[in-house]
Amino acid sequence: MSDAPIIAVDANGADAGPAEVARGAALAAAAGVRVLLFGPIAELGSGAPGVELIDAPISIAKAPDPARAVRSTPEASVVQAWRAVQDGRAEALVSGGSTGAALAAGLFGIKRARGIHRPALAILVPVPGSPFLLLDAGANVEVRAEHLVQFAHMGAAFMETAMGLERPRVALLSNGEERDRGRPEVVAAHAELEGAGGELEFVGNVEGFAIGTAAADVIVADGFTGNVALKVMEGTSAALLGAVRGAAMSSLRARIGGALLRPALRGLRDEVDPEAQGGAVLLGLRSLGVVPHGSFGARGFARAIEVAARGVREDVTGRTLERLAAAGALRRPAPAEASDRLGSVPETDDARRGVPTGPGPSG
Amino acid sequence: MSDAPIIAVDANGADAGPAEVARGAALAAAAGVRVLLFGPIAELGSGAPGVELIDAPISIAKAPDPARAVRSTPEASVVQAWRAVQDGRAEALVSGGSTGAALAAGLFGIKRARGIHRPALAILVPVPGSPFLLLDAGANVEVRAEHLVQFAHMGAAFMETAMGLERPRVALLSNGEERDRGRPEVVAAHAELEGAGGELEFVGNVEGFAIGTAAADVIVADGFTGNVALKVMEGTSAALLGAVRGAAMSSLRARIGGALLRPALRGLRDEVDPEAQGGAVLLGLRSLGVVPHGSFGARGFARAIEVAARGVREDVTGRTLERLAAAGALRRPAPAEASDRLGSVPETDDARRGVPTGPGPSG
Repeated sequence: MSDAPIIAVDANGADAGPAEVARGAALAAAAGVRVLLFGPIAELGSGAPGVELIDAPISIAKAPDPARAVRSTPEASVVQAWRAVQDGRAEALVSGGSTGAALAAGLFGIKRARGIHRPALAILVPVPGSPFLLLDAGANVEVRAEHLVQFAHMGAAFMETAMGLERPRVALLSNGEERDRGRPEVVAAHAELEGAGGELEFVGNVEGFAIGTAAADVIVADGFTGNVALKVMEGTSAALLGAVRGAAMSSLRARIGGALLRPALRGLRDEVDPEAQGGAVLLGLRSLGVVPHGSFGARGFARAIEVAARGVREDVTGRTLERLAAAGALRRPAPAEASDRLGSVPETDDARRGVPTGPGPSG
Repeated sequence: MSDAPIIAVDANGADAGPAEVARGAALAAAAGVRVLLFGPIAELGSGAPGVELIDAPISIAKAPDPARAVRSTPEASVVQAWRAVQDGRAEALVSGGSTGAALAAGLFGIKRARGIHRPALAILVPVPGSPFLLLDAGANVEVRAEHLVQFAHMGAAFMETAMGLERPRVALLSNGEERDRGRPEVVAAHAELEGAGGELEFVGNVEGFAIGTAAADVIVADGFTGNVALKVMEGTSAALLGAVRGAAMSSLRARIGGALLRPALRGLRDEVDPEAQGGAVLLGLRSLGVVPHGSFGARGFARAIEVAARGVREDVTGRTLERLAAAGALRRPAPAEASDRLGSVPETDDARRGVPTGPGPSG
């Protein structure tokens, strides 16, 4: 067991409280992962084999400026957890708290991987039959073509390593399928990805319709468009399921029909259950960060910890850089530039997923 | 009846053929609208009171470059129909054909309204309980703040006049609700709309979640984001309804439940029926253009013709310019600039809605 991956887990911030995260850590440890668990020790229970408890009661709440919150709260559990990764005591991070804080703390602590322009926030979208990775989902409101190109390789490397998918198909989100459709940076990225050669399975542009078809395993967008698309998806689902529920209450006949249909719909609900997927992922840092949804229970946290462990075992960071090097898409160092300038990563006021919604880190 | 609005209707391009459009024209005429109907005269039937038939058998098919198709096909029915508006024989246009062609022909023929930077493509989105207008949905892939500001007033004027909505609430689509969230042009437009004063009911930014809530009556975006959002909405709906349908076939029990629930779900389907709304709208030209979905039947075309007629009666174009003048948001003429330069309005290859998906007209 000594070569089992070690994951630093921030137990603060989850809706169900640190004890639920601790239960998830115990489940993951039983499956062969070692966990350093940071949280208020009185609430973490008695521990479990493979889980080391570290008292870190301070939590960073959702804040308009998570970067500032991170800098001013070095004792916060998420900062301590990243520091464990930075110091080599752990190999990846999982946090059920604020995505903005996790990203800001990651940038501040372990920094961007060398050769990466900008880290991205990726979301595993649980669509029935065809889950996919959407990135960037909000970290970078404005991007250049080379950022989109890197996102494509970062997403592919993650799906390949941490999710075990062979030759993931990568697409650019645009307003038309033809290669000349889209914002200028999308058109330029398209041309570059087409020329990337055998390493990347680039399938071209997809439109919004692609949501829910199995058209691609990785869908790449700037953080503004990706964030809007993700939330439109959630809003549409909620509206539609609400309307179906309403229809099933509209008459006695409909109520009986709804009751008979319920078990089958429950199966569908399980399929779109985000806990089965693992939540959000921070890509492009020197180590992997996974941010399960704050509403997850023990099972969801265990799954997130296992995804992080798999990313470590399969060397997601190394694979990403190899891919970028092979495609000639690594960032060349600019001596005059501060190598890890931290932009503002403001916090979303929406508690549903914790996607940072403001201008992201600039690289 | 002599003061009834006269609408030029292009009968070509509808999926169900010109005869179906002719039936819609007859319905609208019975409701008090006068129609000039352009199409293959042999297929338009014997006409109806208030409907004048004009033989125009040539149709512009969906083309990668509708602007070129329009210029090279002056005898096409949509070009003839716009020409009737240009010559004062009609006051607004309805076409069930390609949106790109209708927009290109409109720009080429009757041109932008004076003071408008760029026309926009607006979609009436049939969300249960809270239909709203989304613009721009694809005509302008890149925009500046002043374009978004104009879209806000254009959308509000349309909802107020043609749809009869008092003080429509207008929002900007962004990746966060705070005024400093979003691309720079969104942030700048927000500041300007906040200062617009009493004329505009500006409710701030909305996120993608707003789809399906009654948060706003007009949602403003650039054409790239708007197009993606619209198609994500459609893709998500299709995926979800397909999954519900699948669940309702998964067992005998579920099948019985589905059968009992069907009448109630049919009511829901009627509510999200785009025919009830009227389709796409071209705003910012010197006259109103309405482009119902190609799949519409007679009822949908009649409704679209009535929406156009109402826009004429309530003077949507005049109201738009009044609003813009009051807000100081009219475009100042630039003498060096060609006043109606026509950019490329490429055609979408997606036949579902005919939203132009390429770089739009530049103003």
